[in-house]
Amino acid sequence: MSLDQAARKPQDRLSALLADDMERVNALIRMRMTSRHAPRIPEVTAHLVEAGGKRLRPMLTLAAARMFGYEGEDHLLLAATVEFIHTATLLHDDVVDESRQRRGRPTANLLWDNKSSVLVGDYLFARSFQLMVETGSLRVLDILSNAAATIAEGEVLQLTAAQNLATTEDIYLQVVRGKTAALFSAATESGSLIAGADGKAQRAMFDYGDALGIAFQMADDLLDWHGEAGATGKNVGDDFRERKLTMPVIKAVAAADDDERAFWVRTIERGDQREGDLEHALALMERHGTLEATRAEARGWSDRARRALDGMPEHELRDVLDALALYVVSRVS
Amino acid sequence: MSLDQAARKPQDRLSALLADDMERVNALIRMRMTSRHAPRIPEVTAHLVEAGGKRLRPMLTLAAARMFGYEGEDHLLLAATVEFIHTATLLHDDVVDESRQRRGRPTANLLWDNKSSVLVGDYLFARSFQLMVETGSLRVLDILSNAAATIAEGEVLQLTAAQNLATTEDIYLQVVRGKTAALFSAATESGSLIAGADGKAQRAMFDYGDALGIAFQMADDLLDWHGEAGATGKNVGDDFRERKLTMPVIKAVAAADDDERAFWVRTIERGDQREGDLEHALALMERHGTLEATRAEARGWSDRARRALDGMPEHELRDVLDALALYVVSRVS
Repeated sequence: MSLDQAARKPQDRLSALLADDMERVNALIRMRMTSRHAPRIPEVTAHLVEAGGKRLRPMLTLAAARMFGYEGEDHLLLAATVEFIHTATLLHDDVVDESRQRRGRPTANLLWDNKSSVLVGDYLFARSFQLMVETGSLRVLDILSNAAATIAEGEVLQLTAAQNLATTEDIYLQVVRGKTAALFSAATESGSLIAGADGKAQRAMFDYGDALGIAFQMADDLLDWHGEAGATGKNVGDDFRERKLTMPVIKAVAAADDDERAFWVRTIERGDQREGDLEHALALMERHGTLEATRAEARGWSDRARRALDGMPEHELRDVLDALALYVVSRVS
Repeated sequence: MSLDQAARKPQDRLSALLADDMERVNALIRMRMTSRHAPRIPEVTAHLVEAGGKRLRPMLTLAAARMFGYEGEDHLLLAATVEFIHTATLLHDDVVDESRQRRGRPTANLLWDNKSSVLVGDYLFARSFQLMVETGSLRVLDILSNAAATIAEGEVLQLTAAQNLATTEDIYLQVVRGKTAALFSAATESGSLIAGADGKAQRAMFDYGDALGIAFQMADDLLDWHGEAGATGKNVGDDFRERKLTMPVIKAVAAADDDERAFWVRTIERGDQREGDLEHALALMERHGTLEATRAEARGWSDRARRALDGMPEHELRDVLDALALYVVSRVS
């Protein structure tokens, strides 16, 4: 690896290596987000799709297929499918969270209305299923329909776990799988599958995506407590103010004495937050070492993602996926 | 047909003929609406599923399969799939329409919240795709993913067509296909497909479901203007008060002179409705014969559904489907 390559973020290297494929995926997305009858659909979709997301999920799909020497066209369909599912999820998430901004722009629910976001999201889900049916692979459909169920289940779980101090680390992991890891792992598993990878390799690529997604989300949750402004597009303490139970808080609640527990009940369950509470919450997490413990777990998932790549074919894309697993936790190391 | 049979509503006869199958479909629905992690999901789903809907869509699926002598098990999966898609659509519809009642009970968005309805709807969509993948038939997946796209597109179209006097009869038909006919035709087409019906018969069963759905919806729209209270669970004039463009109104707008047009602009587009407007709207539709013209069209679609059954296998279920096509318009004849 040249110094130049090492200095570049892994997702930029993915973009460079997959530029031709991604151009075709973007063309496919533009073509399939149209509607013969309802112009509102491409308007809403374009607002989100063209806001310049990282397109990480379609790139993971393409990388997994190319790594195994895939030369067909179905990886483009798969990549567009994965991006459509992701976009549909974002539209519905923004309605559920009553969000007003995403990627630095007003959300669709704000620009149009909740109705349009719900229905256009449904349309994109349906379009994603049409795209995956075109691959003609029942295994692909199995993987992606299971991922869609895990995503929706995780969202409901997040809704009922919010502001609930009884949330366990197990529930947190299930929420994170729904939020991030399920689509990552479906992308990498199905990409390797259509490239003809054997069952063991498909399983390893599933594990890579799953562990990468969990490491990514844990790092994101940590950044909420001590990130620099701008690194995540969120402000420090947003999760606390929104009373979200993330891993370092769950661990701090589990280790709390009576006084500490009363603090969490007041701030998270009752939502009665005062000046200085954010700092006190941080101090409690430092006292019990829960930020450091979460950091160690995130690194553990990153290691697990990298180990899953052992035995995968020698390929420049494998090296970049490895670097990506390292990168997602480097933000909090 | 005995006098006793003739006197019974066709959907009751369907229920009786398909009772064993429907019991198994209901068991399958109950089993698949569970969630390992998120108890909110079966709570919300059960509220709607067990409210005692007519289960017309799964019965159409089963009838189409049995008519062609099907003896396997996949028709049960298909029927549950169709009911899950329908239930997911109702959950999202009630959010979009801000409904407070359905089937005589408070809606899920009222009992829980919009968030739960959006996310549980997504879960049911995903579950429906898992169920259809289990049939192992790519053609089934093709039919149902296309129907899902038509449904969502129709909903968006309905949203943008609402209160818009430029709505044409073509747009109305597209909305009706999304609202009702797409799932009816997917049910009957896919049911005949898994039973091994040939391409021509599958096409005829598609046509039957499509025409039945359109006739059904047109009759429903007519009932809104002169139905008896209780027949539809709606009150006379609800569509007018909600400023919906249904077929008799679209035809009346197209035939309107300047004064009449001003009336429609005020009441539908601007939503400025006064005492006596409902009666005046009815008088305008009578003047141009648009209720009678819509009735004739509904009868035309009913005839078309019945003609589609010509050449289908001799079967008691075929006779009931024929009676059903007659019945849906008998309510307005």
